[in-house]
Amino acid sequence: MENIAIYPGTFDPITNGHVDLIRRATAIFPRVHVLVAADTKKTPMFSAEERCEMVKEAVKDLDRAVVEIFNGLLVEQVRRLSANIIIRGLRAVSDFEYESQMALMNKRLHPEVETFFMISTEEYAYVSSSFVKEIAGLGGEVGSMVPPGVARMLYSRYGSNPAGR
Amino acid sequence: MENIAIYPGTFDPITNGHVDLIRRATAIFPRVHVLVAADTKKTPMFSAEERCEMVKEAVKDLDRAVVEIFNGLLVEQVRRLSANIIIRGLRAVSDFEYESQMALMNKRLHPEVETFFMISTEEYAYVSSSFVKEIAGLGGEVGSMVPPGVARMLYSRYGSNPAGR
Amino acid sequence: MENIAIYPGTFDPITNGHVDLIRRATAIFPRVHVLVAADTKKTPMFSAEERCEMVKEAVKDLDRAVVEIFNGLLVEQVRRLSANIIIRGLRAVSDFEYESQMALMNKRLHPEVETFFMISTEEYAYVSSSFVKEIAGLGGEVGSMVPPGVARMLYSRYGSNPAGR
Amino acid sequence: MENIAIYPGTFDPITNGHVDLIRRATAIFPRVHVLVAADTKKTPMFSAEERCEMVKEAVKDLDRAVVEIFNGLLVEQVRRLSANIIIRGLRAVSDFEYESQMALMNKRLHPEVETFFMISTEEYAYVSSSFVKEIAGLGGEVGSMVPPGVARMLYSRYGSNPAGR
Amino acid sequence: MENIAIYPGTFDPITNGHVDLIRRATAIFPRVHVLVAADTKKTPMFSAEERCEMVKEAVKDLDRAVVEIFNGLLVEQVRRLSANIIIRGLRAVSDFEYESQMALMNKRLHPEVETFFMISTEEYAYVSSSFVKEIAGLGGEVGSMVPPGVARMLYSRYGSNPAGR
Amino acid sequence: MENIAIYPGTFDPITNGHVDLIRRATAIFPRVHVLVAADTKKTPMFSAEERCEMVKEAVKDLDRAVVEIFNGLLVEQVRRLSANIIIRGLRAVSDFEYESQMALMNKRLHPEVETFFMISTEEYAYVSSSFVKEIAGLGGEVGSMVPPGVARMLYSRYGSNPAGR
Repeated sequence: MENIAIYPGTFDPITNGHVDLIRRATAIFPRVHVLVAADTKKTPMFSAEERCEMVKEAVKDLDRAVVEIFNGLLVEQVRRLSANIIIRGLRAVSDFEYESQMALMNKRLHPEVETFFMISTEEYAYVSSSFVKEIAGLGGEVGSMVPPGVARMLYSRYGSNPAGR
Repeated sequence: MENIAIYPGTFDPITNGHVDLIRRATAIFPRVHVLVAADTKKTPMFSAEERCEMVKEAVKDLDRAVVEIFNGLLVEQVRRLSANIIIRGLRAVSDFEYESQMALMNKRLHPEVETFFMISTEEYAYVSSSFVKEIAGLGGEVGSMVPPGVARMLYSRYGSNPAGR
Repeated sequence: MENIAIYPGTFDPITNGHVDLIRRATAIFPRVHVLVAADTKKTPMFSAEERCEMVKEAVKDLDRAVVEIFNGLLVEQVRRLSANIIIRGLRAVSDFEYESQMALMNKRLHPEVETFFMISTEEYAYVSSSFVKEIAGLGGEVGSMVPPGVARMLYSRYGSNPAGR
Repeated sequence: MENIAIYPGTFDPITNGHVDLIRRATAIFPRVHVLVAADTKKTPMFSAEERCEMVKEAVKDLDRAVVEIFNGLLVEQVRRLSANIIIRGLRAVSDFEYESQMALMNKRLHPEVETFFMISTEEYAYVSSSFVKEIAGLGGEVGSMVPPGVARMLYSRYGSNPAGR
Repeated sequence: MENIAIYPGTFDPITNGHVDLIRRATAIFPRVHVLVAADTKKTPMFSAEERCEMVKEAVKDLDRAVVEIFNGLLVEQVRRLSANIIIRGLRAVSDFEYESQMALMNKRLHPEVETFFMISTEEYAYVSSSFVKEIAGLGGEVGSMVPPGVARMLYSRYGSNPAGR
Repeated sequence: MENIAIYPGTFDPITNGHVDLIRRATAIFPRVHVLVAADTKKTPMFSAEERCEMVKEAVKDLDRAVVEIFNGLLVEQVRRLSANIIIRGLRAVSDFEYESQMALMNKRLHPEVETFFMISTEEYAYVSSSFVKEIAGLGGEVGSMVPPGVARMLYSRYGSNPAGR
């Protein structure tokens, strides 16, 4: 049986840290479904369609990555896609606790699916979606933290333009 | 290219938590090399040969698991076996920090190898090799925490026999 | 002097983890006042009255548990009830920091009251009120995480019905 | 070259923990710019002007402290003031992770500026702005946690008066 | 049924933090058995008898405290004394993880016994037995951290005498 | 009054992470005393003299750094050197807890001395003395983690020579 991995997230917006993880996951697994959650606990800055478009643009060179919006529970996506692996990134201790609880619950709901945690490389250790929005909102430079298209979207949304572009 | 995973450890001794992880890893990867470290920072209770034997006995039903002793650096094993995945278990926050540092270093030494972290199931969250030795050393029952052969080795080493009381 | 314990919380809604803690506390202390906070930092999903009703229903078999709504500061309830013990559950490291700060402050305001922390059993380690709401809101099954009446309230609130009930 | 330190924050409101840190920093550095962030992620309780006034009042005896409101990115303030030091307080592990990520990012944006972390003394370990607002909002006594003027502002804002003042 | 609490530890040596916890526990429970572990993972500085004597001296004014040496597993002491409560102090996040694992295991071995965690007051947050030994070994003053008799024992053991300088 | 900083440690051996911190500290403070602890809890691999020599060699270009061996308590060195600042590096959460306890104790023993914590840059986040010894002991390459002289000392001590393969 072939391994099918899913990498779920809000991607509001996608960062270079996410892209790095997807790239590394596609080096291992023949198919990585990047699933953009339509439902989020907090109101997202970008619509599900915008977030999905940004992810697609960012990973368009990765043949093994498939990008889709999803609604509802992750375990239903696991079933629909016959996935057996959930990929999650870990940056910090605070991530770890929430993520391990989520992994245990998903394991209980769907015993044959495994959650694999990957560590963000040092370069992206402090790059998170909320951080990027905070910096862009204050007029800061985020070009090294997100794909070019995402930086443009952020500056346009905030009406800022740090580099005079 | 086929995925080849390695699961390195001291296994002094192997616990049911380790066995569970190996079983789960073999459900995903066609080959999982369980590597028993001959060199350990602390003097182990069991010799490398004893530890290796206990692991072999514990996973003998898992066709995709291969058990071997190794010396020296993990990255050399990665090279020798053409492995592209290192599996590590995470139980707690304190594990997480050491393990993520190790993963970052291995990534730097060998960029094409990925470390995947798996969360121990709740059932084994408090089962560690040192814990098991502590309990067995005090004459306690460890039958639910380690494979039967390991429990016998521990009681014989400590001269204790909880079940016979 | 008799020990009087209070177990304060928002209970939005009560989970099986809370019920387990209350049951365990009533095995030790002759009276456990379960205090439902009317004031909460975040807007609760259920009204104080609804939350109180759900708690009452969930612990109705525990003779030593008394359920009440409270307003204002916890230390005033301590005084009113002549309580000398505050019970708090701990699930994770992130709980621990906030809770220990709270315990130190309560100790300073009311030196004769002690906060006792109890660890959630593994079974409930990932069950929190916010988690349960998240799952139920996405149409997921929460029947193993909350008392039956609470599951019904959640599905009715979200207009979902995972099991066709 | 003289050392110029900045101590940025939201100060919504300033607490005795903040004042203690500023006092300790002015004992080391000839100039400490206390920078009150106009922009905050969450809607503050007090306006930037009110917050700035409360800080000024609280540190008026410290000759080496200068208090100002700032907009936008911290690194721009670093440049404007030719500062080479950022001071941050640490109370708990949860602070540490966010703060260390921030420090790494500031280091990258401005390599010649150093972030120095100072530990809150035990006395103020549980005193945070959000905690103080929570207590005051419930009608509790906060006189030992904030400067007198701040306590008055809080009670007046909440319409509460715990000590009959 | 009466509540019987046990407070196990190595007490190598007892600190003022331990004494504070015992005093607070005896204010709640009619009987608190302070159990001095004869077996310890590391070689203790003081013999079990010396450690027990120091504890007895330190808590001699607390009528409800009983001090004893114990061998072997804690759960056997729980049985022997018909105890239903284990008291443990928590100082820091790193304590929390080990202690919660221990509590879960004791709960499994002996379901009717509860572990209650108490937070060390700020005053004793950094006082641990190993810390006290480290300071005394370097010739430092430990008089504010341990009972007077313990300070004398430590100085005599290390051949140091800070107060006499 | 001039600021005088001390940076105490075991330096068994000094790593590039230490050197980076010393360099950054000398950019801020006119004098940084690097104090090599003769007494260590664990038996060091290198003698105090060897460790001191390696530190001297590693920082010989930093005019403001002074390297010395010290015995006994740090607070006595603070007094002897009229230092008002202790510098400590922080890499991870687990460092943070021990270090903050140490800082609080030093503050109590010597109220006018401040401990400033600096975050290790990402590049050195996983480089610790014990890590370097572990790798070198297994025959691994440590040239990017320690100064050249230290690498030679380590290989010679372990009888290994990775570069010569």
